[in-house]
Amino acid sequence: MSKFTINRWRLKLQEIIYEADTPAGKLFDIVLLITILASVVLVMLESVNSIDTKLHGFLNISEWVITILFSIEYIARIITVKNPFKYIFSFYGIIDFLSTIPKYISLIIGGVHALAALRALRLLRVFRILKLARYLGASNTLVNAIKASRAKISVFLFAVLIVAIILGTIMYLIEGEANGFTNIPKSVYWCIVTLTTVGFGDIAPQTPLGQFIASLVMILGYGIIAVPTGIVSAEYTSQSKSQKSNEPTASLPLNPQCCSNCLNETHRDDAEFCFKCGCKLHHD
Amino acid sequence: MSKFTINRWRLKLQEIIYEADTPAGKLFDIVLLITILASVVLVMLESVNSIDTKLHGFLNISEWVITILFSIEYIARIITVKNPFKYIFSFYGIIDFLSTIPKYISLIIGGVHALAALRALRLLRVFRILKLARYLGASNTLVNAIKASRAKISVFLFAVLIVAIILGTIMYLIEGEANGFTNIPKSVYWCIVTLTTVGFGDIAPQTPLGQFIASLVMILGYGIIAVPTGIVSAEYTSQSKSQKSNEPTASLPLNPQCCSNCLNETHRDDAEFCFKCGCKLHHD
Amino acid sequence: MSKFTINRWRLKLQEIIYEADTPAGKLFDIVLLITILASVVLVMLESVNSIDTKLHGFLNISEWVITILFSIEYIARIITVKNPFKYIFSFYGIIDFLSTIPKYISLIIGGVHALAALRALRLLRVFRILKLARYLGASNTLVNAIKASRAKISVFLFAVLIVAIILGTIMYLIEGEANGFTNIPKSVYWCIVTLTTVGFGDIAPQTPLGQFIASLVMILGYGIIAVPTGIVSAEYTSQSKSQKSNEPTASLPLNPQCCSNCLNETHRDDAEFCFKCGCKLHHD
Amino acid sequence: MSKFTINRWRLKLQEIIYEADTPAGKLFDIVLLITILASVVLVMLESVNSIDTKLHGFLNISEWVITILFSIEYIARIITVKNPFKYIFSFYGIIDFLSTIPKYISLIIGGVHALAALRALRLLRVFRILKLARYLGASNTLVNAIKASRAKISVFLFAVLIVAIILGTIMYLIEGEANGFTNIPKSVYWCIVTLTTVGFGDIAPQTPLGQFIASLVMILGYGIIAVPTGIVSAEYTSQSKSQKSNEPTASLPLNPQCCSNCLNETHRDDAEFCFKCGCKLHHD
Repeated sequence: MSKFTINRWRLKLQEIIYEADTPAGKLFDIVLLITILASVVLVMLESVNSIDTKLHGFLNISEWVITILFSIEYIARIITVKNPFKYIFSFYGIIDFLSTIPKYISLIIGGVHALAALRALRLLRVFRILKLARYLGASNTLVNAIKASRAKISVFLFAVLIVAIILGTIMYLIEGEANGFTNIPKSVYWCIVTLTTVGFGDIAPQTPLGQFIASLVMILGYGIIAVPTGIVSAEYTSQSKSQKSNEPTASLPLNPQCCSNCLNETHRDDAEFCFKCGCKLHHD
Repeated sequence: MSKFTINRWRLKLQEIIYEADTPAGKLFDIVLLITILASVVLVMLESVNSIDTKLHGFLNISEWVITILFSIEYIARIITVKNPFKYIFSFYGIIDFLSTIPKYISLIIGGVHALAALRALRLLRVFRILKLARYLGASNTLVNAIKASRAKISVFLFAVLIVAIILGTIMYLIEGEANGFTNIPKSVYWCIVTLTTVGFGDIAPQTPLGQFIASLVMILGYGIIAVPTGIVSAEYTSQSKSQKSNEPTASLPLNPQCCSNCLNETHRDDAEFCFKCGCKLHHD
Repeated sequence: MSKFTINRWRLKLQEIIYEADTPAGKLFDIVLLITILASVVLVMLESVNSIDTKLHGFLNISEWVITILFSIEYIARIITVKNPFKYIFSFYGIIDFLSTIPKYISLIIGGVHALAALRALRLLRVFRILKLARYLGASNTLVNAIKASRAKISVFLFAVLIVAIILGTIMYLIEGEANGFTNIPKSVYWCIVTLTTVGFGDIAPQTPLGQFIASLVMILGYGIIAVPTGIVSAEYTSQSKSQKSNEPTASLPLNPQCCSNCLNETHRDDAEFCFKCGCKLHHD
Repeated sequence: MSKFTINRWRLKLQEIIYEADTPAGKLFDIVLLITILASVVLVMLESVNSIDTKLHGFLNISEWVITILFSIEYIARIITVKNPFKYIFSFYGIIDFLSTIPKYISLIIGGVHALAALRALRLLRVFRILKLARYLGASNTLVNAIKASRAKISVFLFAVLIVAIILGTIMYLIEGEANGFTNIPKSVYWCIVTLTTVGFGDIAPQTPLGQFIASLVMILGYGIIAVPTGIVSAEYTSQSKSQKSNEPTASLPLNPQCCSNCLNETHRDDAEFCFKCGCKLHHD
């Protein structure tokens, strides 16, 4: 095989793995999506004792099949990308590695139950595939609204946390260890459970004064739950409007190609070079 | 009885059953509504042991009366509609069948408690009757806002589900079987209970690290509960506005008649033929 | 005392009781507000066994004092109003009667614990006094927004109720009596507890299938909690806007006087006659 | 040391403590922030028995170091400010005092566990430091929206409280002491727990009628949770708009200096005198 043939194969593979607008690329994404979901179902079933004892052989073999498939995919990704180290140490590169390795380690050490659950991280890879959903334009406004609200919601949640610590300390003093508020961190935990209106009930105030303070905490939580909602709602409305007003740029047809050097994905449809690293893009 | 007389009877019946703007049609709908509600109350009372032992005879006879009434209605619907198979295999046709048959089956097999509860499906028929409420224009904007938000909320809920699975797996590793997190599906169930701020408390983290992660999950849930609310709120606002701006078409008087062939209901007031199947509509 | 003097007294009393813009009327309202709140605190303390045994004498005497004060006020209201029957059978007239009578009945029959709690209804009278807060213009937009959303939220809550009954029946079939879902009404109760994200945890699904359905119910509840919020939010926004656009009429100075014949309260500031019944209003 | 030198030192110290735009002032704020957070972590760890027994010596010494640091800061603040009494009796002055004194008292009396938790109040001082975050303009709209909604949300929460008391009394009558509703205050507490959708489950209705009323309470709570959210959302939207329309005044460059006499902080950038007390501001 000449170097040219290898290069052609590499390009072909790259197109399949990193792009989603060719039939082969689409098929690859769908197969990958199904494999990931099947794999996560396997991890779940394995953790259920009654099922694991019955189907241990089947689950083990299926897991090996999936692990080998993911290993091949991982190697293919490294081979086809121009800058392998960039991929390996990228967020998804680490996820890919961490979700493939546990089965091999279990072969060497054996019985590492905890490690097995790392395989659930595979689910994060679904986001990579569904990032393509962005081209459908369905969730663009949503993502922008969340991004725009992030700073404000963070400030707000930080203030809520401080309130939770102070109120938690007060509840620790009022209720004391006898009523389940054994220490301040646990009281703060209870306070967060209450402020967020989750209310497990594993710890609950018993003294009248404690119940009175708890009522105030709940009404406070009831009042402040409104704040993040109001922020997102307002941001979402203004995002929708601004999207409508500059429709021409918003509807700019994006190119579903992916730069083979820096993995950047948001190119204009008529782009010939990557706008980030200047590397040549290839067309079908 | 000549064929003509039968046809006239069929038309009269059809008008009563499928339409809501004639006095007879209105009366039929109200009687049906009351019968359905009474029937659902019966199903409920029957499931309460103390009541069932006391009033078994009365409940049984009432159930038979209602079942026979529904059977007659079911047969009448089949006879009057031009395309019976279309009705039988439509959503409401199946609901009508499933909610009528259990009592007859109990006669043959006997003691099929589970089947009896199928009768609660009758409640779904309330929606068919209340679909007429649409003509009151009360909930039009609401329905449109929900429809417009559906895709975005689905994307969002899918992301929440993936987060729940990953966080559930982490909690399974931290808390372990001793603290009630017996397997990953149960941990994911706990995680959904917490993220949605329901918080049953049948499973609750016991270790300090678990409670810390749980606090993060709750604050996360608190922050993201804002997202679907913001979406619906923004969509609803924009729906209200667009409805106001094209008031002429929005207030187009709809005809409460129902095509006797394809059961389509949203005809213009001055329509003479069904706009879907071209079948002649009849007027009073 | 001549008839004229009696009439002057009646007018003076009426001004104090039914109006809020004179110093005497304001004082009366404040004293009444404090008395009502004190009275409700008394009802609460009385229900706490440990406090009742200690302070029974004091609580009993205080209750008699308050009951007699309320009786005097009730009689004064009947005397001063021009149409006593209209007042007696009005909403607040019945509340006034029901919240005064229990102590007298306890004198005749004795030991009617249940009746005593009727006195908590006195709290509803706070709304009558705070209706005056309306003149402060603080909650006008809020009230309008809630009124405008009422119909839509009702339709929505009705649909939620039907969903709760059907899902409750399904959970009853899946979980059964062994896991706490003893009958359909209790299952429906559980379903409402879950859909509204309250989650007491007194009943919780135990089977994997039940927990799966419960997860769907919770995510559904999470999604639909957005709807009423969205409605109120949108209505409130549009109310704020429309209030701004017709500011001149919105800021019309309202007269805090109350017609002595029909108890109507929303008169223009320069009104000389009641716009509902034509009865002469008196000025200071 | 001449009086002039002392004055120069005082000015320098004041600049460091009360201002945030000089390098020394920034460093001081960051060190203070870290010390406060470390101190709160110490208070928390001390309350956990297992940690306290192991690390008692270390925790005690660390606490003394922090207490002495805070004492120095407290004295420095009193010395440098022109009007010491105004600072001592201001909100933050009292917080500073209360969060420094407990350790000294424990030296005299010994074993005052409860007092120790007062140190958690130190966390409130974080707000003083983060008030500077205001200059970043990040949370201005948020603060304004909350301020604008405060009155309306208060009215709303007051109405919710009245509803809770009446519904709580009704539940007390229906469920009675046997089912955990031992007295009216406890019933009201349960009602607030339910209305706010927290739902601990420590008290839960047992009778069918009680569960029915509880369902109504929950659906009511579900409906009214929409109101505060709607208010904040609408206010936030209008705040965003008004902020955009009068951008020139909103973006007025604020001076991060702090008046050394009255501690006022919101001066214009070109201000030479405090606009509140007329005291001369000093520049770098």
